Amino acid sequence: MEVPKKLLNSVERCVDEALEGIVCSNGGLVLLKGHRVVLRSDLELLKGKVALLSGGGSGHEPAHAGYVGRGMLSGAVAGSVFASPPPGSILAAIMTLWQSGVSGVLLLVKNYTGDRLNFGLAAEQARAQGVSVDMVIVADDCAFTQPSKAGRRGLCGTVFIHKLAGALAEEGCALDVIVAQLTKAKKSVGTLGVSLSPCSVPGCLPSFQLPPGDMELGLGIHGEPGIKRSKMASADEVVKTMIDHMTDPSSQSHLPLKSAGRGVVVARVMSGSFMSSLEMAGVSLTLMRVDEEILRLFDAKTTAPAWPNLSSVILSGRTMYVEPAERPAASETKPNQGPLSLVIRPVLESVCKVLLQRQEELNALDRAAGDGDCGSTHALAANAIQDWMQTSTVPGNPCLLLTALARLVEEKMGGSSGALYSLFLTAAAPKLRESWSGADWAKALQAGTEAMKRYGGAEPGDRTMLDALCPAVEELMKLLTAPGDHMAVLQAAVEKAELGAESTRDLTAKAGRASYIASERLTKPDPGAVAVAAIFRAVFEALGGKSH
Amino acid sequence: MEVPKKLLNSVERCVDEALEGIVCSNGGLVLLKGHRVVLRSDLELLKGKVALLSGGGSGHEPAHAGYVGRGMLSGAVAGSVFASPPPGSILAAIMTLWQSGVSGVLLLVKNYTGDRLNFGLAAEQARAQGVSVDMVIVADDCAFTQPSKAGRRGLCGTVFIHKLAGALAEEGCALDVIVAQLTKAKKSVGTLGVSLSPCSVPGCLPSFQLPPGDMELGLGIHGEPGIKRSKMASADEVVKTMIDHMTDPSSQSHLPLKSAGRGVVVARVMSGSFMSSLEMAGVSLTLMRVDEEILRLFDAKTTAPAWPNLSSVILSGRTMYVEPAERPAASETKPNQGPLSLVIRPVLESVCKVLLQRQEELNALDRAAGDGDCGSTHALAANAIQDWMQTSTVPGNPCLLLTALARLVEEKMGGSSGALYSLFLTAAAPKLRESWSGADWAKALQAGTEAMKRYGGAEPGDRTMLDALCPAVEELMKLLTAPGDHMAVLQAAVEKAELGAESTRDLTAKAGRASYIASERLTKPDPGAVAVAAIFRAVFEALGGKSH
Repeated sequence: MEVPKKLLNSVERCVDEALEGIVCSNGGLVLLKGHRVVLRSDLELLKGKVALLSGGGSGHEPAHAGYVGRGMLSGAVAGSVFASPPPGSILAAIMTLWQSGVSGVLLLVKNYTGDRLNFGLAAEQARAQGVSVDMVIVADDCAFTQPSKAGRRGLCGTVFIHKLAGALAEEGCALDVIVAQLTKAKKSVGTLGVSLSPCSVPGCLPSFQLPPGDMELGLGIHGEPGIKRSKMASADEVVKTMIDHMTDPSSQSHLPLKSAGRGVVVARVMSGSFMSSLEMAGVSLTLMRVDEEILRLFDAKTTAPAWPNLSSVILSGRTMYVEPAERPAASETKPNQGPLSLVIRPVLESVCKVLLQRQEELNALDRAAGDGDCGSTHALAANAIQDWMQTSTVPGNPCLLLTALARLVEEKMGGSSGALYSLFLTAAAPKLRESWSGADWAKALQAGTEAMKRYGGAEPGDRTMLDALCPAVEELMKLLTAPGDHMAVLQAAVEKAELGAESTRDLTAKAGRASYIASERLTKPDPGAVAVAAIFRAVFEALGGKSH
Repeated sequence: MEVPKKLLNSVERCVDEALEGIVCSNGGLVLLKGHRVVLRSDLELLKGKVALLSGGGSGHEPAHAGYVGRGMLSGAVAGSVFASPPPGSILAAIMTLWQSGVSGVLLLVKNYTGDRLNFGLAAEQARAQGVSVDMVIVADDCAFTQPSKAGRRGLCGTVFIHKLAGALAEEGCALDVIVAQLTKAKKSVGTLGVSLSPCSVPGCLPSFQLPPGDMELGLGIHGEPGIKRSKMASADEVVKTMIDHMTDPSSQSHLPLKSAGRGVVVARVMSGSFMSSLEMAGVSLTLMRVDEEILRLFDAKTTAPAWPNLSSVILSGRTMYVEPAERPAASETKPNQGPLSLVIRPVLESVCKVLLQRQEELNALDRAAGDGDCGSTHALAANAIQDWMQTSTVPGNPCLLLTALARLVEEKMGGSSGALYSLFLTAAAPKLRESWSGADWAKALQAGTEAMKRYGGAEPGDRTMLDALCPAVEELMKLLTAPGDHMAVLQAAVEKAELGAESTRDLTAKAGRASYIASERLTKPDPGAVAVAAIFRAVFEALGGKSH
């Protein structure tokens, strides 16, 4: 087995560098020189207030330094990875806070023997020097139905206690008042974890093995054993198992909460990384029963970097959905079956027929350059248009016609081609709202082409459908300056499209799927360009133009 | 190979459930019914302002829904995992925002063909319906020195663009003003990623393989190939490689920044999960050149759930360290070598001698119950005290004496025993500050015992040193009510300690390391309790008491 990869400089200094990193990144934090202690940079604002100090082993980031800030902790003491911090550093933090003029120092400690002893020792040393100091121990783990003498472990619920304590201290509450409030509040907090993977202390092998497909319930945040291994279950099942276990009245460590079902009003939800266990994959669920006062403290502002942006809204019972604005249905566009539709119908029929006839040819061209479905995709569009003509009124207004076709190809053709054709038609349509002279059509096709270029990111010469489309549209634009024989201009455009399609034989693909193919393997024309040329010719012939 | 474990209910609904989850958890968000669209719940506040809509494939959480809120996005449209969202949902979002009375809708799109086409199509459709809509495409990837026609990919830098756009829109800037500002700002953003592991789309195998010990530079956020694979390097080396590559003027996608060394003033740092790639292990680095105006927009308030608490302080050049409060050095306690030290020295010598004599016996007892080092640990303390007596003045004041011993065992004895003895001595010391009658000593030892119980979490009967200590201290407390023959009381206390130690043979361990051993295997007395009894007897005999 290999020691897992981690991005760090050295195992020895990784904790120090992590602390330097968080302090470098946050103007509100400073390091206590010579110690693994992060403090608020604005200690002067604590004068006369109670300072809050927490900490513990590293490897639980963003805990605990991430919770240092106005309205949360005054400081955090870090040990090595998964190891309790030394009493000397805890004492140094206490004394530094005390000398900045605070009225007392409260230690917020997770219930592990090492942390209790080391924070306890520092507390007694500080007390011997006249510091007003007290300790609150958080033990929120709901895993064990009969906890050992060491008691329940301190887990993610500690973060809630940091928050409540921070709000009370910020308001100027006295040390004994804060201790009394937290001692009450911490009984209302329970946590249970579930893990899908082990974690590994930097430089070490993983802390345990978990077979593929298994998960472990009730795991600690240092890889300590949980209460049950089982096969992976669905998220809903896992959460139900967790809540049922956490609230089971027969467990000595349960959280008193009405059993699932359950009529509980959810006031706030936080989700994210708050008390991690290195890279361990898994999740812990922390529940806290609240009243209005606790909620007020929970919602109070803090500058701590790891506290998230939360809204102050009761979540249960709120409206989670808004209705979308109505998209005008196709029928609402009131197509008028005018004289134009007598022309449009045969044009569309001609286009569909050609695309279906040439389906296999286009697929074959595409097999050399892409995924071989260019003909099939165009056939999807042709079939959709044929179905639509049988069941719907073909609009006599070209703007409505192109809009309807745009929606058809968007929904039925699919893929990038569907999006590109739909873009083309959608951008072209508004130019034909009021009039539809030859010049209007030319402008519409130009607008469509421009949209295709803009959003698709390709240009003529990139071996795409634009190599047929652009020269054809350029030809059509002559209708603006020299309005003469429309059919002659259209014929010239068709020929330009065909020439353009043919020219793609010699082009290197720079966009679209073919751009991933080595250019020497591309000896046939681009199927998208060929399809565009075929459409142009089909339109031309349906309008009475001469075929080849 | 196995499909990696993920905690979800179904592959089909995992994106929908993730969106429902974020909306359930955040009072500031709502879902657009029938679409994978998250919107601000306070759309009425957008009246007359520009609405901002972003989105893209899922699997990049917290992007994009996490950036919806006042001062950032008005909405986010999600596709399936790593797939562009359908134009119909983008259009529905645009039209819903438009109908809520906004002055325009700006689409913020990462540079992927699918996103460009689908957002582009929706934009053209909205425009055809008279909506004032525009699009800014973010392409911040610095990986490729010669980007393909598709251009640079949109990566984490998009989040900065969201933030700047959000601040401008909140201030009431017009659509064209915002577009102009962003078009300028986005040129100053560059991103480069490095990956240590693949990721897997839910229900699928990992997207690629990366050998153990390897990393890949320049990877995309969908598992697309990067520019270079190499052996893992140190964090410093990796970051240097990344910055050098990102700022290399010979790369077409470089970010213009003076080369490393480097005199760059760092204004702000964000670190965390902002644009993830499922469970892929790795990191991306995004740099943005800023001026005062950009920084003002960056610092503006937002309620978006995934935007972190940041301080508005220029980070470069600030003071990162504070000096700790001085811990009074041992020499500063000015010990007075009074007549008492003539008594103390032989007592300490006697204790040290006994502990060293019995080292192997204590280790043997501990091998049956723990890690076999109880004698060695006590010997460490004894050696430290002997050394200290040779080099230091032994204080004649018992308060100073116990304080000095507390620090010695804290620093030199180590482990839980060191912390417990240190706690005991530290808590005992203040009781002997002014006077040191027999009653004072009894009260001091009681205070020490209480501290040990409080922080250690054990009680008499738990098979620990307390089983010797507590009955002895109880005996000594008789000095408070019946001050008589001190030596007789001390003798009785010694005998109680020895009886207590012996009684631990029959106790089940409930605390300490022995609590992990089945009780039937524990047939010898607890070594910690035996050590305490030995210390009591050594003190007694040094004071002239009769040996056995």
